[in-house]
Order: sequence, then C-alpha cells, then structure tokens
Amino acid sequence: MPTNPHAPIALCCSHVEGATWEAGLRAALPDAALSVWPVAAPDAEYAIVWSPTQDFLDAHPQLRLIFNMGAGVDALMRLRLPPNARIVRIEDGGMAVQMADYVCHALLRHFREFDRYAASAASSAWAPRAPRDRRDFPVGVMGLGALGQRVARTVAAFDFPVLGWSQSPKSIEGVTCLAGADEFDRFLSQTRVLVCLLPLTPATENILNYASLSRLKAGGYLINVARGAQLVEEDLLRLIDEGHMAGATLDVTRVEPAPPEHPFWHRPEIELTPHIAAQTVVREAIAQIAAKIAAGLDGAAPSGVVDPSRGY
Amino acid sequence: MPTNPHAPIALCCSHVEGATWEAGLRAALPDAALSVWPVAAPDAEYAIVWSPTQDFLDAHPQLRLIFNMGAGVDALMRLRLPPNARIVRIEDGGMAVQMADYVCHALLRHFREFDRYAASAASSAWAPRAPRDRRDFPVGVMGLGALGQRVARTVAAFDFPVLGWSQSPKSIEGVTCLAGADEFDRFLSQTRVLVCLLPLTPATENILNYASLSRLKAGGYLINVARGAQLVEEDLLRLIDEGHMAGATLDVTRVEPAPPEHPFWHRPEIELTPHIAAQTVVREAIAQIAAKIAAGLDGAAPSGVVDPSRGY
Repeated sequence: MPTNPHAPIALCCSHVEGATWEAGLRAALPDAALSVWPVAAPDAEYAIVWSPTQDFLDAHPQLRLIFNMGAGVDALMRLRLPPNARIVRIEDGGMAVQMADYVCHALLRHFREFDRYAASAASSAWAPRAPRDRRDFPVGVMGLGALGQRVARTVAAFDFPVLGWSQSPKSIEGVTCLAGADEFDRFLSQTRVLVCLLPLTPATENILNYASLSRLKAGGYLINVARGAQLVEEDLLRLIDEGHMAGATLDVTRVEPAPPEHPFWHRPEIELTPHIAAQTVVREAIAQIAAKIAAGLDGAAPSGVVDPSRGY
Repeated sequence: MPTNPHAPIALCCSHVEGATWEAGLRAALPDAALSVWPVAAPDAEYAIVWSPTQDFLDAHPQLRLIFNMGAGVDALMRLRLPPNARIVRIEDGGMAVQMADYVCHALLRHFREFDRYAASAASSAWAPRAPRDRRDFPVGVMGLGALGQRVARTVAAFDFPVLGWSQSPKSIEGVTCLAGADEFDRFLSQTRVLVCLLPLTPATENILNYASLSRLKAGGYLINVARGAQLVEEDLLRLIDEGHMAGATLDVTRVEPAPPEHPFWHRPEIELTPHIAAQTVVREAIAQIAAKIAAGLDGAAPSGVVDPSRGY
C-alpha cells in the first residue's frame, strides 16, 4: 500500500530546538504539509521525532514511518506504536566520524598517557615516560553497525590490533570479527580497551558488568559511547578498585544528567562527558529523512528501518 | 668503492641507554665487530649514533655511513663530519604512527573541546556544548616526508579538510598539496590548525613566527612536533594574547628540558609535553639499520641518506 504523497508530516521535537528542524524540513520538502506538535495531524503517515510522548503517538494512528532524529531508538521502542508504524533510524548522518573522534581521542589519551603528561605539566615538570607498545593494547569494538565499523577502521589506522564483536557475523578489513554469544568470551579475553557502541536492547542492558569486564586483559579500559544502562556502574568501580581495570572514558550514565554527587565525577581514573560523543547533525539528518520521504513508500521500506524483534 | 665487510662498527650512545642498542645490534649483526664509544675503532666505516660529540667523529676518520638513531639530524649536521661520511636517518621506524597519535589527539582535543569538558568535569558539571563544524578547522601539515604523509593521511580519515606544504611538490590522496616559498602564504591562509613536522635547517629555523602565524585563519592553533627552534615562542604568546590564535600543543621548546618558569607551563591555552611525540622504537630502528649494513655499500647508497645541501 503506497503512502499518500499529500498526507501531512508530523514533527515532534521534545527537548530539542524544533525551529531549526522545522525550517530545514520546510526548505527540503517545500510541498509537504508539516504539522508541529502539539498541533496534531491525525492523518499524518510520516512523523519525525525526538523523544516523543505516548500522547503524540496516540494522536497519529495512521503513521507508517516514524523517523527518529538520532541513532538510538531504545526510548522510542518502549512506547506503544500505531499499528502500521515502523521506526527509521538516522544512518551515520555525520555521527560516525564523531564517534571515531571521541573513541580515538580517549584511546590515544589513555595509551599515550597524555593524562599523566597533563598532570606533570600542571606542576611544570618535564618528565618523559617510557613508551608503551600498542601491541599490548588490543581494542575490541562491540557493535559493528555504521558507527562501529567506522570506529573500528579508524582505530586500525593507528596500528592497534582491533577486534570487533556483533550479533551477526561481519567482515571488516584489518579487524578480527567475532559474533554472537558463543564468541563473546573469546572477544573479551583478547581485548584490553573495550569500546561499546551497541544499541540498547533487553539483551544488551547491563552487558558491561563484573563478569564481562573481568574477562578483559589486565589493565583493561572501557570506552562507552552507547547507553548508560549497558554498564553496571558499581561493577566498573569495583574492578578499578581491585586493580584489574585501569579506568574508563564514559559519555553516558544510567541517569542523565549525572548529578554532582555521581562517583564518576570524583574518580581520577574516569573521564566523563555529558553525552556529546556524537550529536545529530541537523543538516545531514534532514537531508537523509527528506530523501527517504521524497522517494515515497510504494513497496520497499527505506534503509534504516528498525527490526522490532532485534530492537534496533 | 665497496665497504669492507669486516670493518668494525662504531656505536655512540650519548644520553641514551646504550646497553639495549648494543645487545640488539649484536643479535642482529652477530658477525660484526662492534666497538662502543668511548672505545675508538679508527678503521670503522659505519657508525650508529645518538648525539655524538665532535671527539667521536674525529676519532673515526674512515666513516662512510653514520646512522642516526632518530629522524631529526639537525644536531649532527652542525658537527664536522669525516670527509667521506654520509648521514642516514631512521625512516619511519615506528615513529610515523606515533606522530599520527600525537597530532590526532591534540587536534581532536582542541576541535571537540575535550579540554573544556575536563574543566566542567572537575566541577562535577554536566554541560554539553554546541558542536562545531570540522569544515571550519582545515588542518595544514608542514613537512611531507614519511612522518608528515602519515599524519596528513590519518587526519584526513577524520574528514577534516587537509592541506600539506613541503619544499618539493608532493601528491597525497585527499590532501591539497602546496610547495615552496611561493605557495607558503596561500597554505597558511587556508589553514586553521597548523602542524609542524619540518626538519630543522637554517631555512626552517624561526619559520613559526609572528608574520607566518598571523596569516592563519582566525582562531588558529599550532601543533609543533618538530623542533623548538622553529618557533619564536614570544610571537605565539603575543598572537594568543591578541586573540588571533586559540592556543597550541607543543612537544618541543627552544631549550629542553623547559625550565619550571617557562611561560608555556603556565598558559591555559598551551599544552606542553616533554619531547615524547615520537620516540625511536629501538627494535625497529635496529632492524632497519642492520638491514642496510648487511646489504653492503657497493655503489648505491641506502635510502634515508641525508642531502647536505637540503640539511635533511
């Protein structure tokens, strides 16, 4: 059943600057009837959303495609969707290179001990340190979608040994790819710097816990740029206290924003940033969504459609 | 004139741990007669040196090839060499990837404002900042030898616009290459983040000065991983004070070690490290030198021979 090209598009911008999105969408789709929530468009077949409420979804029962403004759809998946609606994620949209920025910066800062040089500099001390061998710092990337693949390839450009782990088998040049629950322990035991880019699903909630993190090589390091709910925070602190892990760079916490009393702010081994690793590039996201809407929906679904059984 | 394969090899390890070099060379060249300074080997035709004195060179008048343990030969070039001696630099030898580490870390830290996030974290503040556009941060790499080419290619992997500038024209995929004095101003005026990997020669001493740095785009940033004598230090400070430059990450100073009162320690806009950007990887350097010695010298000189007229 094709979509109605004249059906309105419902825009829902909770918690973000909606004016930029509205103006960009009007420019990209000049003939579309755009309706901005809380004004409802009951016959809308497309929605473009950031953190929509259940009310928004209930007010648009005809939705066919719901374009999520970010890559992670876990919050949306917890709502009741209209019966014929499918969710479409942003694919890359300028986020993959930002993830590569963030992960490589954190990895290099840890491996090259730039944090320790900064501490020496703070006391005006010229104090060279013995170099370390990158062969002792294999990097394991969990999640090998558009973002994870870009991260794995970029890390490999710095000659680190790189492993990847994903639900379904993947093949990436220069990366040792493992897959599925059967190979998870093998992946962890060969990894020293663990990078999490997994989608948050019931299967990945709490996946970074005492049992999994303790399988990392001694001196393990965690870089989490996915979701805070994937990490059992006290387990990380315990493994640092026990000396098995050296520390972590984290862009996400279970409760965001992390309150001032959160222990991650107060541990020298942990670098915490306020969920900024990869921010949606509005210009690129609008171009991607507009192209999919303009292409219509007669038959094939656009790429990026979420599989409800996988949850991403 | 071929070299004498039985001639001894003179090793001079001022300021570095000579035992590692000696053991490694004996393992790599088991038949060689290795003589360790201050024991002289007057008939030596090869020398392997780190910061040799004039005395060492004067004691070895038959030298044909002097292998420098690092990439920069500026200190050696200031000495009087034996009449038939040529200098051979380490080519890459594990240093190029270290330069890529250092430069990408400094670039990403500045561009993504991780220094500011660290400052927020120090006061337990969850404070996201508006993202910046990497198209506004073109990176210009001065010096396109083995190290500079690797750096330029790695920076390009993060989607920054990348320019390169060298004495003789080069061609690198994804990099806008300019060359020579005629194109220097054009290179500078298109650059915001300037990376110096030039060899130190009379032509490059003080090349980073008020006139050149003021040609950078507004908000310019300097990353110097070459030699301290290339930067007029007070000119950098003046351009920061005037607001034209945002700051710098520097691995070298005119006087090393930088004393505690050096202003670079005390400026929040400047990150200073103790000349550790690329440290010679002894294992790789020994393998490279041993292979060149084992190949002999009947006719063609090995790669990496320094051109005295260029000074590198």
